[in-house]
Amino acid sequence: MARIGLSVPPGLTISTEACQEFQENGHKLPPGLWEEIIEALQVLEKDMGAYLGEPSRPLLLSVRSGAAISMPGMMDTILNLGLNDEVVSGLALKCDERFAYDSYRRFLDMFGNVVMEIPHARFEEKLEALKASKAVSLDTELSASDLKVLVSEYKKVYLEVKGEEFPIDPKIQLHLAVLAVFDSWDSPRAVKYRSINNVKGLKGTAVNVQCMVFGNMGNTSGTGVLFTRNPSTGENKLYGEFLINAQGEDVVAGIRTPEDLNTMKLCMPDAYDELIENCSILERHYKDMMDIEFTVQENRLWMLQCRSGKRTGKAAVKIAVDFVKEGLIDVNSSIKMVEPGHIDQLLHPQFENPSAYKGKVVATGLPASPGAAVGQVVFTAEDAEAWHAQGRNVILVRTETSPEDVGGMHAAAGILTARGGMTSHAAVVARGWGKCCVSGCSDIRISDSQKIIVIGEKVIHEGDWLSLNGSTGEILMGKQPLAPPSLSGDLGTFMSWVDDKRQLKVMANADTPGDAQTARNNGAQGIGLCRTEHMFFASDERIRAIRQMIMAVSPQQRQIALDLLLPYQKSDFEGIFRAMDGLPVTIRLLDPPLHEFLPEGDIEDIVSELTLQTGMSEDEVISRVDKLSEVNPMLGFRGCRLGISYPELTEMQARAIFEAAISMDRQGVKVLPEIMVPLVGTPQELGHQVSLIHKIAEKVFSAMNAEISYKVGTMIEVPRAALLADEIAEHAEFFSFGTNDLTQMTFGYSRDDVGKFLPIYLSKGILHNDPFEVLDQKGVGQLVKFAIEKGRRARPNLKVGICGEHGGEPSSVAFFAEAGLDYVSCSPFRVPIARLAAAQVAV
Amino acid sequence: MARIGLSVPPGLTISTEACQEFQENGHKLPPGLWEEIIEALQVLEKDMGAYLGEPSRPLLLSVRSGAAISMPGMMDTILNLGLNDEVVSGLALKCDERFAYDSYRRFLDMFGNVVMEIPHARFEEKLEALKASKAVSLDTELSASDLKVLVSEYKKVYLEVKGEEFPIDPKIQLHLAVLAVFDSWDSPRAVKYRSINNVKGLKGTAVNVQCMVFGNMGNTSGTGVLFTRNPSTGENKLYGEFLINAQGEDVVAGIRTPEDLNTMKLCMPDAYDELIENCSILERHYKDMMDIEFTVQENRLWMLQCRSGKRTGKAAVKIAVDFVKEGLIDVNSSIKMVEPGHIDQLLHPQFENPSAYKGKVVATGLPASPGAAVGQVVFTAEDAEAWHAQGRNVILVRTETSPEDVGGMHAAAGILTARGGMTSHAAVVARGWGKCCVSGCSDIRISDSQKIIVIGEKVIHEGDWLSLNGSTGEILMGKQPLAPPSLSGDLGTFMSWVDDKRQLKVMANADTPGDAQTARNNGAQGIGLCRTEHMFFASDERIRAIRQMIMAVSPQQRQIALDLLLPYQKSDFEGIFRAMDGLPVTIRLLDPPLHEFLPEGDIEDIVSELTLQTGMSEDEVISRVDKLSEVNPMLGFRGCRLGISYPELTEMQARAIFEAAISMDRQGVKVLPEIMVPLVGTPQELGHQVSLIHKIAEKVFSAMNAEISYKVGTMIEVPRAALLADEIAEHAEFFSFGTNDLTQMTFGYSRDDVGKFLPIYLSKGILHNDPFEVLDQKGVGQLVKFAIEKGRRARPNLKVGICGEHGGEPSSVAFFAEAGLDYVSCSPFRVPIARLAAAQVAV
Repeated sequence: MARIGLSVPPGLTISTEACQEFQENGHKLPPGLWEEIIEALQVLEKDMGAYLGEPSRPLLLSVRSGAAISMPGMMDTILNLGLNDEVVSGLALKCDERFAYDSYRRFLDMFGNVVMEIPHARFEEKLEALKASKAVSLDTELSASDLKVLVSEYKKVYLEVKGEEFPIDPKIQLHLAVLAVFDSWDSPRAVKYRSINNVKGLKGTAVNVQCMVFGNMGNTSGTGVLFTRNPSTGENKLYGEFLINAQGEDVVAGIRTPEDLNTMKLCMPDAYDELIENCSILERHYKDMMDIEFTVQENRLWMLQCRSGKRTGKAAVKIAVDFVKEGLIDVNSSIKMVEPGHIDQLLHPQFENPSAYKGKVVATGLPASPGAAVGQVVFTAEDAEAWHAQGRNVILVRTETSPEDVGGMHAAAGILTARGGMTSHAAVVARGWGKCCVSGCSDIRISDSQKIIVIGEKVIHEGDWLSLNGSTGEILMGKQPLAPPSLSGDLGTFMSWVDDKRQLKVMANADTPGDAQTARNNGAQGIGLCRTEHMFFASDERIRAIRQMIMAVSPQQRQIALDLLLPYQKSDFEGIFRAMDGLPVTIRLLDPPLHEFLPEGDIEDIVSELTLQTGMSEDEVISRVDKLSEVNPMLGFRGCRLGISYPELTEMQARAIFEAAISMDRQGVKVLPEIMVPLVGTPQELGHQVSLIHKIAEKVFSAMNAEISYKVGTMIEVPRAALLADEIAEHAEFFSFGTNDLTQMTFGYSRDDVGKFLPIYLSKGILHNDPFEVLDQKGVGQLVKFAIEKGRRARPNLKVGICGEHGGEPSSVAFFAEAGLDYVSCSPFRVPIARLAAAQVAV
Repeated sequence: MARIGLSVPPGLTISTEACQEFQENGHKLPPGLWEEIIEALQVLEKDMGAYLGEPSRPLLLSVRSGAAISMPGMMDTILNLGLNDEVVSGLALKCDERFAYDSYRRFLDMFGNVVMEIPHARFEEKLEALKASKAVSLDTELSASDLKVLVSEYKKVYLEVKGEEFPIDPKIQLHLAVLAVFDSWDSPRAVKYRSINNVKGLKGTAVNVQCMVFGNMGNTSGTGVLFTRNPSTGENKLYGEFLINAQGEDVVAGIRTPEDLNTMKLCMPDAYDELIENCSILERHYKDMMDIEFTVQENRLWMLQCRSGKRTGKAAVKIAVDFVKEGLIDVNSSIKMVEPGHIDQLLHPQFENPSAYKGKVVATGLPASPGAAVGQVVFTAEDAEAWHAQGRNVILVRTETSPEDVGGMHAAAGILTARGGMTSHAAVVARGWGKCCVSGCSDIRISDSQKIIVIGEKVIHEGDWLSLNGSTGEILMGKQPLAPPSLSGDLGTFMSWVDDKRQLKVMANADTPGDAQTARNNGAQGIGLCRTEHMFFASDERIRAIRQMIMAVSPQQRQIALDLLLPYQKSDFEGIFRAMDGLPVTIRLLDPPLHEFLPEGDIEDIVSELTLQTGMSEDEVISRVDKLSEVNPMLGFRGCRLGISYPELTEMQARAIFEAAISMDRQGVKVLPEIMVPLVGTPQELGHQVSLIHKIAEKVFSAMNAEISYKVGTMIEVPRAALLADEIAEHAEFFSFGTNDLTQMTFGYSRDDVGKFLPIYLSKGILHNDPFEVLDQKGVGQLVKFAIEKGRRARPNLKVGICGEHGGEPSSVAFFAEAGLDYVSCSPFRVPIARLAAAQVAV
C-alpha cells in the first residue's frame, strides 16, 4: 500500500517460519521471538504516538491468523487487545463510556473463549442473568453502568473456570494471543483436515498484529463503508454510508441509521477529499471497482480495508465496459473482470429482492437450474400441461422426473424434485431449457396419491402458490415478486469482445428445432449434441411407435416400428438443419436404456397400457418388460450396444439423417451433419457402426441421386474408450467427451444415487466440488488429456470436443481450453457463459 | 517333417505373397504363377509315380486354405481334386466301385458349392429324389450304380445353374480351386471381420496342395488313428483303431467297426513296426503325447496328420510326470504340458461319460462353475436347506440368486439360474465353494408360484431329477451317473514342481473358517479377500442385527445394532485367524449396498418382515426402505462410502478384527491381519478410513494391553483410484485390484445386465472373451499396470495383489505375474489352477 501512499493503520506480521519454530520448540515461542515482537511494537507505538497499556494514550491492537488457506479448526477470529480497567476508564472519557465498557466485556468474552478456552456459555449466562434482573431483552438496552457490572462478573468467570485472574497486562494478552494463533495450527480438526486433504509443505500460520483506530473520538471522527461504483447498476458514482462519532460495529449493530457520504463531505471536507482521491487511486491501482472501509480519527482519514467489490451481473458488465471506455483497462482485462456467473444472472428472471425474503424459506434443495419461478403446485406432468394450457403458471413437483414428464416440465414455470442431484434428469433437462429447477430437496416429502407436499409440519396442497430460487435452491411459500432478465446494450458490446478473443468454439446441446434456434441466438457455433431420444416423447404417436419398437421381439416387428419412426426423425432433423444453416449439427444415435421408454407407474398400469398400445398379449408384455428391466441400467443395454444388437435401429437413424440432409441441401440450406456413436468402449464397436452408417449413406445417396459430406465420430464416455483412444481414433473423425458418464464411471458414482453420500463427502472435505458440476481435473481430466494425446497421435486432424454438463461450467471450460479441445458444447442457456470462460483462458 | 524322415505324402504350398499379387492383379493369377504350380506338380507326379488326369495311375490332390488365422468367410474346406469319368473308372477297378463313385459325387457337390457357387441344396435335391425313388433312407444304402446315376444328375446341375459343363480337366479343377481359395480372402464376411477386429498387415492366404494316398487299395492297404498314450488315463501304451482296405471317412461313416492296432501288427508287420518307430520319433520330437492319422497304401506307410493329443486332466498330469521320469523332458517343460483346465477337472466331480449323454441335453446355459451335479429340483433356498437336511440331493433353481439365498445355495448339490452372467452372484458364490453352477440359462422359464421350469414344451416340476454340467453349461433331465474327483499321486508330485518354480504367491478368497481351511488345503498362501458381508447371513440373529443396522436412522440406533454384530464378527475372525495361523488374512470392510441386506419379495412382505424385526412403524420402514433404494446400486452407496458416512461401522469392524487378533495371539496363533478399504476413488477417502482404523487399533491395544502388527491397504477397483494410484499409495500399505468392479467401470458393463448384449458381442467378434472371465489386458490391464507403476513410485515396498474373479483364470494370472504383482487371490477351488498358471509364466 505504501506504493500509492494511502494512510493505513500500521502493524506487524509474525511469519509462518516462527510458527514452525514454535512447533519444534515444544509449543513455546522460540528464543528471541518475543523480543523481536516487542521491538516492532515499540516502532508502532512511536508511529502512532500511543502506547500499549497507557491509559491516557492507549494503543489497541487487533490480532488474527494469517493462514495461507482457511481450514476448519484454525482461529479465524479478530481479537481486539490492549484493554484493562485503567485503559477502559481512559477510553470512556475520550470516546463514549458505554462503548468503552461494551468493548471491554466483548473482549473479555472473546479472549476468554478463544485464548483461555473458557466456554462462551459461561459468559452468556452472566449476560442473560443481568438482562433478566434489569428486565430488558436486548443487549443494547443495557447502560454503561450495567456493562461495568457485567465486566466484573466476566472477570469472576476467569477465576471460577481457570483459577486465575484475567491478565490485565496488555503485553501478556498479546503474548497469549500469539500462542493461541500458533496453537490453532495444530488443533485436531485442522490436523485432520490437512491429512484428509493432503495439504502439505506449509510451515504454519502467520500472525497479523495491527493498530486499531477509532471513529468514535467525537465529532471530528467517524466511520464508513463504500463501493467506488454502484454495485447494483454499475453507475460510476460512489455508493456508501457514513456515521459520525462511531465505530464500524455501530453500523452492523443497527442502533443508528447510517447517513450518506454527503454528510461526511459537509462535516469533514478534507478527509472527504482525501477519501475521494484515495478511491480514485485504488480503482486505478487495482483496476477494479472497490469495496472500502475507512475511519476518520480526529480528522485524520485511515483506510481500513479495501477489496474488490461484489456486484450484480448487470453492474459487472457495465463496469467492465466503462473501464475500457475510460481508458483504465484494455479489453483483455475487462474480459477477466466479469465472472461467468454474472452472465448467467442476466439470462434468467430473478427475485426482485432476494435478501428480503430470507425468513420465508421453508426448505432448501440443490440449485439445479438458475433463475426464479413462481407458480401453483401440480403433481403430474399431465396436470402441468393442462393448467398451463389454461394460462396458469405452475410449479411441477415430482419425487423425480423421467423422460415421460418432459411435456409437463416444459409447460411448468419451475420444477421441484425431492430426489436426484445436480445432474439428475430434472436438472439436466431444466438447464437445457434455461428453466428454473430445484432438485434433490430431501426436506420435503411428496405424496402423489394425496397430492400434498409435507415439509416438517407444513402441508402444501395442489394449487397452492410456491416460489423457487433455482440459483440458491431455496423454496418459499406464496408468490415472491419477480424481475425479468435484465439485458442491456453493454452486454452486446462485451460479448463481441469475448468472441474476438477466444479460440475455443462454443456449441450447444439442442434436441429440437426450437432449442437449436435459441442456441443460435445465444451465439452457439453449431450443435455439439442432439439427443435423438428426446424426439420420441414429442407426441403420443411417437411414444406409441417407440414403445412398439422396444417391445418388438423379432427384427421384423422392430423394423415395422422403426418405419413408423423414420418420418418423425427425418422431419425433426430437417428443422434442426434449417435452424443451423451453415453450422455443424452433431447427432447422437439412440443412447438410453430402452426401458426408459416404458410407461410410468406400477406393473399393472404398465402392462395394461402396453397391451393396448402394441396389441401384444399380457403374457408377452410381461415377459418382454421383464427382459428389459436391469439392475444397473447406467451400465446396461444402452448406447451403441443397442445399435450393434439391433443394426436396423442405427440404419433407420442414419437414413433419417441423410434423407433430411439431402432434402434441406436441395432447399439451399448448408447442412454439416456429424453422426456420433455413443458409449463406445472398443474400437470394434465403432468400426461396426461406422461401416453400417457408410453403407446407409451410399444407399441413400444413390437412391436420391445426391451426395453430401458428413462426419462420423464417437463419444468418449467409457474409461476404456479413453484408454484405447488411439485405436478408436482410427475409426473416428471426431471425439466428443461425454463427461457426465465419464465421471460416473471414473468415480463409480451413479449420478442418480450420489445424493446419499456426496453431501457428506463435501462437508468432510473428501471432495471439494460435486464432480458432476465441476470437472474432476485430476482423475477424469487425466483421462481426457490422455485420450486427446493418443487420439491426435493416431489421427492428427481429429476434432475434439466435449458435450457433458461440464461444457457450461467456467473452471471446466478453462481446463478444456488448456487441454487443447476444439470446442465445448453446453445447454443453449449456458452458451454465453462458456463463451466468456473460453475467452478468459485465452486472454 | 523331412528332418525326422517320416513318410508324408508330398505337396506344394502357394505363398501368401502370391495371394497379394493376385489381389493387385485384379483377382487374376499373377503372371508366371500357374507355370510355377505346374512345374511343382510335375515333381510331385514324378515322386509319386502317379499323374494328374491319368486314369491308370491317377494322382488326386487335396486343396485347402493356409490362412494364418481362421476367420469367418474364409474357405476352410478340404477340396479333393483330380476326378473325372475316366479317372473314376480306373479307381473303381483298383479300389472299390462304390467308393469311387461316392467320392466322385461328393467331389462334384463340394467343388460345385465351394468353387462354382452352386447352392448345395441343388445337389441335395437330386440325392433326395434318388433316395425316394429307391425307397431308401440312408445314403449308404445306395449302390454303386445308384451313385453312377447320381453323378450324371449332379453334372446336369452344373449345366442348369452355370450354363457350362463341369470341368473334366483336373488341371482346370486345380486352377479354379486355387482361385477360389484366394477369392475367399476377400469375401465380404472375411473383410468385415478383419476390419472390425483390426486385423492388419496380412498379405492374404496361402494355398496348400497335397497328394492323396489310398488305404482302400486291397488287403495290403488300410487306415488308422492313434494316440501315442492312453488319453483317458495317461498310460504309456498306444491307443488306436485300424481298418484294412479303407479310407479315413469309412471310420467316420460308421459302416464298419474299426479294429485295434493288433490287427495291423498281424496283417502288415513291416508297416506296423515303422509306425511304432514313427510314434516314438514323434513323441521325442514334439515332446508330447501325439494324435496321429496314417494310411497304408500297398504296404507303404504314410503319416497323414500328427498333432498334440487331447487328453483328460488325469492323463495330462500322468503324462507330464512320466515324461520327466522317462527323461524325455525336464520339469519346466512338464509344467508347460498341463493346462490349468486339466487341474480344474481333477478337483470337481464329473459325469462318468460326457460323450454318451449328448442327446439328452434339454437346454444350455453358461458354464458358471465347473463340475457335475445331480439332484432333485427345488425353487427356494428354504426348500433346498430343508430337503438337504432330510439327506436329499437338490438342485436349486432360481431366476437369479441374492445373498439371502446363500444358505440354500450351500445346501444344494448344484445351482441353476435363468439370469445372470459368468460373474453373477450365483456364479461367483458357487465358484467360491467349488460347487457346480449353470447360470444365465435363457432357454428356461421359471415360475416360482407354480414351482415349475418350462423348457420349450417340456415342464419340470419340483422334485424331478435334473443333472447339470457346470463345465459345459448343459442341463439334462434325469440322473446321470457321476464320477468322484480323481486325485492321484502324480498330482501331488506335479504340484510340488509347480510350487518350486513359481514366484507369484497364490492366496484365496475365503469368508469363513471352513473356507479358509479348504483354501489352505488347496495350497493357498494366505487369504487375499475375506468379505465381511457374507458373515451377516450366517444365522437368523445375525440377519436381524444387520437389518436393525441398515434400518437405523440415527447414529445411536446404528451403534446399538453394531454392538450386536461385534461378537459375531469377532468370533468369525478368530476362526479364520486360527485356520490361517502364520499366513496373512486380508479382511475387506463392508462393501455392498445396504439394501442387499433387505428381505426379498414384494414391498408388502419386506415391510411386514422389517416392522416385525426392527419394531419400527410401517411408515418408518417404508420411508427408510425408500431411502435405501437405488437406481444403479453398483455405483451407489457402498464400499468405503458407507464407512465414511457411518464411521461407527468401520470402528466396529476394526475393533472386531483387533480384538480377535489379540485373543488369538494370546493363544499362540500367529496372526497377520491386513485391513482392506473397498471402493476407494480419492486419497482423502482412504486417509479418512486409515486414520479411523489406527485410532481404533490404539484404543484396543491400550484396553487389552497388547499390540500386534497389521497393515492397512485398499482395493483398486474404481478407475479413478488407478489414475491417482501415487497419491493413494501414500496412505496404503498394499493395493489389491478388484478386477470385477474395475472391469465393470472401465467398460461401463454391469455384470448383472451384460447378458443382454455380451453374447451378441462375442458372436460378432466385437469382443473375443467375456471380460469378466478373462482379464481385458488392453483396457483394464492398462489401468492395472499404470497403477502399479505409479503406486510403487510413491511407495517402493508397496505390496500389490488382485482379488477379482480373474485371479483364478490362467491367462489373466499370466498377465498379473508379468505385470509384477506379488500375489493373486482366487476362490479356494481355483488355487491349484492359479498355482500352475503362475508357474507356467515363470518357466
